[in-house]
Amino acid sequence: MLNAAPNTLPTPPHVVIIGAGFGGLEAAKALRKADVDITLIDRTNHHLFQPLLYQIATAGLSPPSIAAPTRYLFRKQPNVTRLLGEVVDIDAKARAVRLENGETIAYDHLIVASGATHSYFGNDQWAEHAPGLKTLEDAFNIRRRVLLAFEHAEREEDQATRERWLTFAVIGAGPTGVEMAGTMAEIAKHTLAGEFRRIDSRRARVLLIEGGDRVLLAFPPSLSQRAEEQLTTLGVEVRTSHKVTHIDADGIRVNVNGLEQTIACKTIVWAAGVAASPLGKLLARACALDEASVDRAGRIKVEPDLTVLGHPEISVVGDLALARSYEKDGETKPVPGVSPSAKQMGRRAAKNILVRIAGGKPEVFRYIDYGLLATIGRKSAVVDVVVPLFGHVRFSGLFAWLFWLFIHVYFLIGFRNRMIVLMDWAWAYGTFNRTARVVVGNEKFETKKAVEP
Amino acid sequence: MLNAAPNTLPTPPHVVIIGAGFGGLEAAKALRKADVDITLIDRTNHHLFQPLLYQIATAGLSPPSIAAPTRYLFRKQPNVTRLLGEVVDIDAKARAVRLENGETIAYDHLIVASGATHSYFGNDQWAEHAPGLKTLEDAFNIRRRVLLAFEHAEREEDQATRERWLTFAVIGAGPTGVEMAGTMAEIAKHTLAGEFRRIDSRRARVLLIEGGDRVLLAFPPSLSQRAEEQLTTLGVEVRTSHKVTHIDADGIRVNVNGLEQTIACKTIVWAAGVAASPLGKLLARACALDEASVDRAGRIKVEPDLTVLGHPEISVVGDLALARSYEKDGETKPVPGVSPSAKQMGRRAAKNILVRIAGGKPEVFRYIDYGLLATIGRKSAVVDVVVPLFGHVRFSGLFAWLFWLFIHVYFLIGFRNRMIVLMDWAWAYGTFNRTARVVVGNEKFETKKAVEP
Repeated sequence: MLNAAPNTLPTPPHVVIIGAGFGGLEAAKALRKADVDITLIDRTNHHLFQPLLYQIATAGLSPPSIAAPTRYLFRKQPNVTRLLGEVVDIDAKARAVRLENGETIAYDHLIVASGATHSYFGNDQWAEHAPGLKTLEDAFNIRRRVLLAFEHAEREEDQATRERWLTFAVIGAGPTGVEMAGTMAEIAKHTLAGEFRRIDSRRARVLLIEGGDRVLLAFPPSLSQRAEEQLTTLGVEVRTSHKVTHIDADGIRVNVNGLEQTIACKTIVWAAGVAASPLGKLLARACALDEASVDRAGRIKVEPDLTVLGHPEISVVGDLALARSYEKDGETKPVPGVSPSAKQMGRRAAKNILVRIAGGKPEVFRYIDYGLLATIGRKSAVVDVVVPLFGHVRFSGLFAWLFWLFIHVYFLIGFRNRMIVLMDWAWAYGTFNRTARVVVGNEKFETKKAVEP
Repeated sequence: MLNAAPNTLPTPPHVVIIGAGFGGLEAAKALRKADVDITLIDRTNHHLFQPLLYQIATAGLSPPSIAAPTRYLFRKQPNVTRLLGEVVDIDAKARAVRLENGETIAYDHLIVASGATHSYFGNDQWAEHAPGLKTLEDAFNIRRRVLLAFEHAEREEDQATRERWLTFAVIGAGPTGVEMAGTMAEIAKHTLAGEFRRIDSRRARVLLIEGGDRVLLAFPPSLSQRAEEQLTTLGVEVRTSHKVTHIDADGIRVNVNGLEQTIACKTIVWAAGVAASPLGKLLARACALDEASVDRAGRIKVEPDLTVLGHPEISVVGDLALARSYEKDGETKPVPGVSPSAKQMGRRAAKNILVRIAGGKPEVFRYIDYGLLATIGRKSAVVDVVVPLFGHVRFSGLFAWLFWLFIHVYFLIGFRNRMIVLMDWAWAYGTFNRTARVVVGNEKFETKKAVEP
């Protein structure tokens, strides 16, 4: 019997996490002290603070301010192994994921947190003319297009073409669209004012196009109205009830109450549709889920404890999960696609894995709603915050903007980032200058797809 | 005679400047108060502080710290019109330059300051494996390769291939090569230490390969020796008298005193050869210069007043000019290819244009030598500074590093940049962390050419 005595310690359970966004990061952190091996797989080498991505696109911040190397974040958590790679297949039976280089990684527990991408509602050919904003590459692409549009206008002799270069459209008036439009107006009216000789950048038009009947549909109507007023003050032309029917290199066609209109413009930002990461499809197939378990946007309907039907060892968190919040009163509520919900799901999924390892009963997910906030431009924002025992508090204007600033800087990861971001903003606020106005990859002065990072 | 009276003011002379590097920028600034119209043409939208470009490549700084939008720099100089474009032809007879979009711009005076690019001495196929460092794109390319090499090593199972990923070679031990090698060693030994689970980044090798018999050939031998000692202390393996004969995806072949050797490595940085901008050839043809007027590196031999033979209305400044300094004692000396000489040439060329407009006699160029300096890594640098009435002062080590720091921060354009750079460096110095370690454009985890930067 001596031979049967273990010479090595038993291997701890292996938790594989796909995606280093808010959900995946929080899940890995929540397993900090657990006796598990974690492999965190992501296609990029950094965690991105997506709520401030529009600041990269509008040249207000540089990548290091809102993106931290994931490796660095976990340097003091020895149970995490970081892999830079892309999951191309999931084998739920064999409990393994396969990477793009053929490597297979077996798991005991899997957390899928691969997030969302933008969706053109089946019109993928629009992507070329109206890039979305989800990754750093997207942000650089948009930054280049916006800044080069003014350069094109400066060089253009034809009046109509020049005006087309000086017309900017943001499609979709959710928080990202509102932030983009407000900041683009600020760039045209203030940052670039006086820098051109043949054009007046202040004459540029920024249009915010929304299919619904008001901006910020997720907010209460009173705040939507305040946001629209503030946008108008900044010089943004808000066009609600405008449904986009076509996009090409020369502009947008919209349907307004049944009538077709054309908007001539060269620079378009897509902030309208969101679709789940393509990994959702892989997962649904791997777990043999039926159509009812996947929604139109490709999100996976999860069980109350965030696991996949029939696969208690697989959890889905963040934007990829179609989850409901199980309230104390027994009711359920939908969970909004914001970063606090992704973080909360990540923590819940991680804790449930530990409960399951210990042989206990996993808990249902309950979303704690802290509210919503969106900034519009200098000194303006709208806030709908949930105060415990009190309910919703809604306000807008300068104080809302300071509140927005505080929250965003507070949640930025890493002390150094916070300092730099505050400094950059203080500088931008004082001077109207945007420091990150460097365009890379236009050596040939063309917005070629090939050189776009 | 009344009809002949001018109803409009005479048009001021038109000065066209090609290139917004140190030479072109200084020329435009020197014409600040002059009654001339200036058109400044550059392929990028920013002025780049090239001496710190290696800091971008090694993830120590972000672009806004060392690159300023040229438009912003000239926002208060109304006689400057900035054009983002590429000059594809020069017509010296018609006195006009042609841009890539067909636009023709006539000039009365032309300053060509298009600088230099890297040269592979006729082996352009090496470029793919050993990128050089001249533009922001180059810097991002190198940054991506260096950081991803460690990621590849972490994922590689084959021992030999893993070691190849963990071997880094810098070819050419001039200031840029020395700075790159020292900083890469620092990244491997300190910044990344403890962040990987399967490899030990401290075991990475950094080789500095130089064809000559010592590093920093432009410096006095005593400083070369100090630099080599400091590099060795940092962990860099210095290989002098190694002549590169071949480069491919698997490494380098070198000739050492007649013997061929192979160095297996995946990540190679080219810091060896410099060639004049291709505009040199265009200019030589346009001005019908003979072979003797263009050197092997493609630089244009200029007259004592920096103009082109037979074309007093065309000046060449900076790295594109093969200029000599006309000393007080009647002797002439070669001018080194450093930023102070480009700036001094830019100013001289601009002043000579004004002299010529006023009907005076242009002055010869005299280079004021302030010395040379190069940094090696944390706390070490070599300095050879010229003190007026005293001569050369040479020192190395910590004090030299502080001196280097002061000079570089002092000459950075824009107060905000200086603050940020100092903060970034203080942070990096205190923590060994490099904040700009974000890799963009590797969504597919491949170092594809198409997505660079």
